[in-house]
Amino acid sequence: MSGVSEPTGAGGSAWSAENLPTVDFRTEPARYRHWRLSVDGPIATLTMDVDEAGGLVPGYDLKLNSYDLGVDIELYDAVQRLRFTHPDVAVVVLTSGKDKVFCAGANIRMLAASPHPWKVNFCKFTNETRLAIEDATEGSGQTWLGALNGTASGGGFELALACDHIMLIDDRSSVVSLPELPLLGVLPGTGGLTRLTDKRHVRRDIADFVATRAEGIGGKKAVAWRLVDEAVPRASWGETVAARAADLAARSGRPAGLRGIDLTPLEKTRTEAEIGYQYVTARLDRDRAVADILVRGPERDAPGDTTAMHEQGTRFWSLAVARELDDLVLDLRTNELELGTWVLRTRGDPARVLAHDELLLTHRDDWLAKEIILYWKRTLKRLDVTSRSLIALIEPGGCFAGSLLEVALAADRSYMLSGVSEDAEDAGAATATLGEMNLGPLPMGNALTRLATRFYGDDAGLAAAAKRAGEPLEADEAEQLGLVTFAPDDIDWAEEVRIAVEERASFSPDALTGMEANYRFAGPETMETKIFGRLAAWQNWIFTRPNASGPDGALRRYGTGRRAGFDRKRV
Amino acid sequence: MSGVSEPTGAGGSAWSAENLPTVDFRTEPARYRHWRLSVDGPIATLTMDVDEAGGLVPGYDLKLNSYDLGVDIELYDAVQRLRFTHPDVAVVVLTSGKDKVFCAGANIRMLAASPHPWKVNFCKFTNETRLAIEDATEGSGQTWLGALNGTASGGGFELALACDHIMLIDDRSSVVSLPELPLLGVLPGTGGLTRLTDKRHVRRDIADFVATRAEGIGGKKAVAWRLVDEAVPRASWGETVAARAADLAARSGRPAGLRGIDLTPLEKTRTEAEIGYQYVTARLDRDRAVADILVRGPERDAPGDTTAMHEQGTRFWSLAVARELDDLVLDLRTNELELGTWVLRTRGDPARVLAHDELLLTHRDDWLAKEIILYWKRTLKRLDVTSRSLIALIEPGGCFAGSLLEVALAADRSYMLSGVSEDAEDAGAATATLGEMNLGPLPMGNALTRLATRFYGDDAGLAAAAKRAGEPLEADEAEQLGLVTFAPDDIDWAEEVRIAVEERASFSPDALTGMEANYRFAGPETMETKIFGRLAAWQNWIFTRPNASGPDGALRRYGTGRRAGFDRKRV
Repeated sequence: MSGVSEPTGAGGSAWSAENLPTVDFRTEPARYRHWRLSVDGPIATLTMDVDEAGGLVPGYDLKLNSYDLGVDIELYDAVQRLRFTHPDVAVVVLTSGKDKVFCAGANIRMLAASPHPWKVNFCKFTNETRLAIEDATEGSGQTWLGALNGTASGGGFELALACDHIMLIDDRSSVVSLPELPLLGVLPGTGGLTRLTDKRHVRRDIADFVATRAEGIGGKKAVAWRLVDEAVPRASWGETVAARAADLAARSGRPAGLRGIDLTPLEKTRTEAEIGYQYVTARLDRDRAVADILVRGPERDAPGDTTAMHEQGTRFWSLAVARELDDLVLDLRTNELELGTWVLRTRGDPARVLAHDELLLTHRDDWLAKEIILYWKRTLKRLDVTSRSLIALIEPGGCFAGSLLEVALAADRSYMLSGVSEDAEDAGAATATLGEMNLGPLPMGNALTRLATRFYGDDAGLAAAAKRAGEPLEADEAEQLGLVTFAPDDIDWAEEVRIAVEERASFSPDALTGMEANYRFAGPETMETKIFGRLAAWQNWIFTRPNASGPDGALRRYGTGRRAGFDRKRV
Repeated sequence: MSGVSEPTGAGGSAWSAENLPTVDFRTEPARYRHWRLSVDGPIATLTMDVDEAGGLVPGYDLKLNSYDLGVDIELYDAVQRLRFTHPDVAVVVLTSGKDKVFCAGANIRMLAASPHPWKVNFCKFTNETRLAIEDATEGSGQTWLGALNGTASGGGFELALACDHIMLIDDRSSVVSLPELPLLGVLPGTGGLTRLTDKRHVRRDIADFVATRAEGIGGKKAVAWRLVDEAVPRASWGETVAARAADLAARSGRPAGLRGIDLTPLEKTRTEAEIGYQYVTARLDRDRAVADILVRGPERDAPGDTTAMHEQGTRFWSLAVARELDDLVLDLRTNELELGTWVLRTRGDPARVLAHDELLLTHRDDWLAKEIILYWKRTLKRLDVTSRSLIALIEPGGCFAGSLLEVALAADRSYMLSGVSEDAEDAGAATATLGEMNLGPLPMGNALTRLATRFYGDDAGLAAAAKRAGEPLEADEAEQLGLVTFAPDDIDWAEEVRIAVEERASFSPDALTGMEANYRFAGPETMETKIFGRLAAWQNWIFTRPNASGPDGALRRYGTGRRAGFDRKRV
């Protein structure tokens, strides 16, 4: 399943914005080319051992454990499986299978050759995966330990920075470094700058020195500057890593003896016109530049207890839908750049959605229930940082309630049909129902719920809405409470929605991306939102500039033996 | 003094990144072409009445009260004079001298024709001026009242959004709007998006609708959506504005009967090689791409009381230096794009700097002392968002203490000479002295002091440094406390500094801008930092994209009658 269709342009390896490969994000450990996952009681070891010849796109070799999107897709899969299939794992040791090299970061030839949207999407996905590693440590007590048995440079060091504890082998040659700026004329694009200051509390002037120095820093100095937590001599490396992992495992609140569930292969059909899963379907309307996404609610009542939920495993509605949405977002984002608007609908019984939510929330001390909630959280965050216009349509027969209502709250706009539809009188009126899921367990990257972000600065509005949790609200009431943007009636509905969607397709796609990236994050910022807002926005700007990506730019000149030619004007 | 040297390229009006006009930021009310300032007791009225033919650069007409940098330079001057020369003003009514038009925002032809660095600098300065308006309301109780006697669109509405209270005339034709996205394919670039959600608490989906609608919104709907605070019929416009101004004046804590000081013309010499003021000099070293900036401390002891300080007026050292630094930052930023590194030195008696600080702090209930502190705060913030590498050199004979030490704390790196210099043994050892000014009164845009930002997440480090306030610290101690980056001795000094500066000049200017914009703002974000970080970074990216600035881009096509041609790929 996983992998990529080769770009079909002239020459085979031509790789332009007009001709991006189609990427499949599904994989499984048996098919990994770049990673090895082994589990020994509470300690898992994830070993990066990149296959040089295993690049996702032809034209570059993945030397020195450098990575491309394909390598990161496997990493993401491993992060997910560790949480669902290996819940008894308390510590994940992240290390390298190469001698003297931990990881050289994103492959430079890949970056240099890839068109702008590919670079941006690649950085976004790698950022999300590193945040998922931190979420495992924080949310599930599955602590990641970076065991840097060799040099970690650029994205390699940034990957280590996502770990809770970083050990660097002290052998007089292994270092950590962020050489992107001096060598490539771009930023460390996977959160490195933000994590140095905001997570590891490296002083900004020290961080400046580190990120402008191609050579890297090892040993005691790397520890003194907080770049790593300890430097360990080669002679005692193996035993110290094992001891540290055992320490961390002992300190973890993670219970032992849990039985994981199998993340069975995700069933999916994909044609030019449609992407289909069990509960989620996306019609790809290229004429309108729209993906029409329908999410179906549960066909059955929620299982009566967690035992039944565990038995259902990936068939359990909440988990199944999260997996499907997750894959769909990644697929559309990467493979369907011209479908600029996603129209989001639901169909089903809101009561059943809420019952599924309730099962999860009532039993959130059950590891699987907790993991499913955290997975919804991460999936919805992916939606928040997706550069597509999101329009939710709340219609009769839909089930925008609780966890599914979050999808509408993530949207840039929502339209809710007021009254009944003449075409479907039996379906009654459209409803939207707030539930406990909307009031805390699924925060955005800014650490606020979508509801609190929506009512930022309007505590009375937030309280008034929250008070109605559990009630199926009809359109006029939902509009009055501020839960939906517009509530046209049957006479105006089709026209108003059509105009909104067509209008969106007529605007500058770049300006929409910028506007949405601002509006979606009202209020406070966190390290996470700073990575996607401040850091990624500057990186995107740098990527478009001739000093990086022009024919004489540093990214293009790297490795040619010729120095970059810069326009020296500061902007 | 003020004004502009015409670009000298072939054709006279050629306007490219290679050929930007030289801008002078100094002006005074007698020379305003676009604004009228009148003061009546506690109420000032600032009337925008842009001279169509008064553009700073040839090639566009400033129709409909649209503005360019020249218009905004006058606005900035007015904001400053209101605070220093008219301290008895409690309310500033901001209105328009045109019929039915408040302000049409930034001039589009100017934006379309101007090269990238000009656009970016222009947006930065206009943002700073709007923040200065908010600082007047917040910091000095000089409340700005937006009296929109006609349509306010784009930057015109954003200017109104900087006011504390917004009144819109309700005449069935006047509206507020943010048409940048639908008409020009760019963002409202002067904080509009951020202020709608974070300041005025407009719901994000409503804000989305507003910013994608070219037509604008007036009357009751504008009030209901919190876009303005009140809509006032034409018949009662004048009296209602007067009443509201009187209300606000009555509520203001601003004392009456204060006597302002005259902001005398700033003395300045400018040659190809140097910019000179009384206390500040910048040598423009084009070969090294460096501006060598020297700030001299007070030549005299601080005046004994505030009466003497008032008498000194603009000759009072603290105010004089703030004015000179402010002008220098603006001059270098706008006119010297290729001087990518600013090397910052001081010379003078640190005790005198601290004594001046102390006079201000002891008497901060004196309006002028307070205003000078607030002016330092704004000037230092300007440094924080300046896209130049800042390197502070702390040498024997210098006076990096208190307010002046903030300049070193604003720098990306600092070097402090350890021990004495062989060339100047008499000068003794270099010192750096923390004072009360470093511990609160001069916060950055992120609402933390520069010291707290430096020690973000390291409370013990912050406390250890703060405890030493008042002590002249020598290099080794300052380094150990984390106040300076490096402390080389006399043997290594010249070489180490030379390498740091040369290295900086060898890096990609864009990557440096991005890195510095990230590192300088460790920790929390505020509305202000979001404007310069998230919003401006996205806008800069959009400005570089063909969808805006290419030959078929929306910004270039506007007004030609031809629709923009977009690359529809979402990035």
